[in-house]
Amino acid sequence: MKLVTYTTDKKNYRLAVAVDETKIIDPQQAYEEKLSETSPHRASELARTLLPEDPTLFLENGEFSLRAADEAVKYALESGTGTGVYKRAEVHIGPPILNPKKIICVGLNYADHIKEMNRELPTHPVVFAKFSNTLMGPNEPFPLRTSLTEKLDYEGELAFVIGKRAYRVSEEEALDYVAGYTVANDITARDMQKRTVQWLQGKTLDKSLPLGPWLVTLDEIKNSQALSIKTSVNGVVRQSSNTANLVFNVNRLVAFLSDFITLEPGDIIITGTPGGVGEAQGLFLQDGDVVKVEIEGIGTIETKIIKED
Amino acid sequence: MKLVTYTTDKKNYRLAVAVDETKIIDPQQAYEEKLSETSPHRASELARTLLPEDPTLFLENGEFSLRAADEAVKYALESGTGTGVYKRAEVHIGPPILNPKKIICVGLNYADHIKEMNRELPTHPVVFAKFSNTLMGPNEPFPLRTSLTEKLDYEGELAFVIGKRAYRVSEEEALDYVAGYTVANDITARDMQKRTVQWLQGKTLDKSLPLGPWLVTLDEIKNSQALSIKTSVNGVVRQSSNTANLVFNVNRLVAFLSDFITLEPGDIIITGTPGGVGEAQGLFLQDGDVVKVEIEGIGTIETKIIKED
Repeated sequence: MKLVTYTTDKKNYRLAVAVDETKIIDPQQAYEEKLSETSPHRASELARTLLPEDPTLFLENGEFSLRAADEAVKYALESGTGTGVYKRAEVHIGPPILNPKKIICVGLNYADHIKEMNRELPTHPVVFAKFSNTLMGPNEPFPLRTSLTEKLDYEGELAFVIGKRAYRVSEEEALDYVAGYTVANDITARDMQKRTVQWLQGKTLDKSLPLGPWLVTLDEIKNSQALSIKTSVNGVVRQSSNTANLVFNVNRLVAFLSDFITLEPGDIIITGTPGGVGEAQGLFLQDGDVVKVEIEGIGTIETKIIKED
Repeated sequence: MKLVTYTTDKKNYRLAVAVDETKIIDPQQAYEEKLSETSPHRASELARTLLPEDPTLFLENGEFSLRAADEAVKYALESGTGTGVYKRAEVHIGPPILNPKKIICVGLNYADHIKEMNRELPTHPVVFAKFSNTLMGPNEPFPLRTSLTEKLDYEGELAFVIGKRAYRVSEEEALDYVAGYTVANDITARDMQKRTVQWLQGKTLDKSLPLGPWLVTLDEIKNSQALSIKTSVNGVVRQSSNTANLVFNVNRLVAFLSDFITLEPGDIIITGTPGGVGEAQGLFLQDGDVVKVEIEGIGTIETKIIKED
């Protein structure tokens, strides 16, 4: 299943299921209509509880939500009433997760990127944070303030989302705790990242984490360690690698992190970027640039940089 | 006003107002009783909306919540019905904020601590993150796993909480966006902090941010830059300084951070620790140690270290 969020008023985002490139279905709305045939007085409350608008609550519901969403989508496609059915182009698509408790970033996790940044292969994953102010949809523009940074850079990354509370989970059982995968661009202000010993301030600018185009549930990705990942700027490929090259893979990251942090449904982990970042080439993002990150089997996100000051 | 959270079942935490060292009042419960005299059919919904259980929502309500809480406390004290009145000792006290979107930590912000860590005075604040899995109440024990860390350390700190959405706020108007102050202990696993170039993994262990004993609203602290701050272990003073020694004070931090991060109600900022951390003395926390952090005009938090593995 491919989960997105959408809004028709740019204020209230709601979870939806993408059925193809052009159509999304609001499962709560479709489910309420379906249930009103048999349980007219309970339809609304059942639909809201089983299929919450917020993806984090949806994930916390586990099988309840997944099963109900499946039924809701089938109903919407078969009934033909149109309730809850939207054209993707007619709504605004947000990030697939809205209110994560954590966004954990892994640095230096592809050998070629480690080399280009003149660092050594780490014995432990390097982890740092972004906050939820960074989240934005897969096709929203990024507002560049050149008074803040003159060294804006991209980092195309595979992201995964936690589906179930995880504490001290082994590598072998790690995937039981993963809801699915999505594509991220860890937009970074290199000058701000490097002016102190900690990277956070260059990593957590508002809107610096475009995410999407959807959250692909685990069942649709047979092997997350064999996906080509590619970043281009204005059509020129800058990063091209494969998730097979990750130093610490998804299973190891879940085991490593959950050893000392309780991971919660909706937590986002971005797994690190391959070689080819702008900084290594002395090329930084400018007004009008379009950055595309594409991961095989998941999809593409596209961010236009728009100068604001 | 002094805001706390409490629970009677160790599951559902609710906001309360501390009226003295021993008594707290659940303002929603008291307010519902008060309103039921005049608006019996609306009392419950009004009380729940104006005085939400979650402190972050309470802060988002702004003046609505503060005014209603004031009325509720007066009613509870004068009516004598006992509704919503609890002895502090009979309930479990949680951290004064439960669900912050961000916990932003400032490192190297007292000159003496910078010196003992062999670092230079920074030109910009050093900021890093903890996640909300770290939050715990002002008197809860910290579970130490020696298989995870052999260098557990304390950092007594002044914390402040954002009360109003802040973006590009000046130093002069900064305090308009601050809800109040509280006491923090930024418990740190030094070995985990230092095994990679980013500190996060040593900073965000579950329960590594005892906070409290309450959130003191801004009106009760005339000047947050003249408060003595003291940390002791088993009664021996280890850190003793004054918030006057902060390199970057509260106003500057709000201005600095809000220049590139939208701050939200409930966001917690911990302002850095003075000299005297355990590491500088080669003394780390052990099973049974009791760490106390005390800030003048705010209060004291006390954490017992209990070995778990």
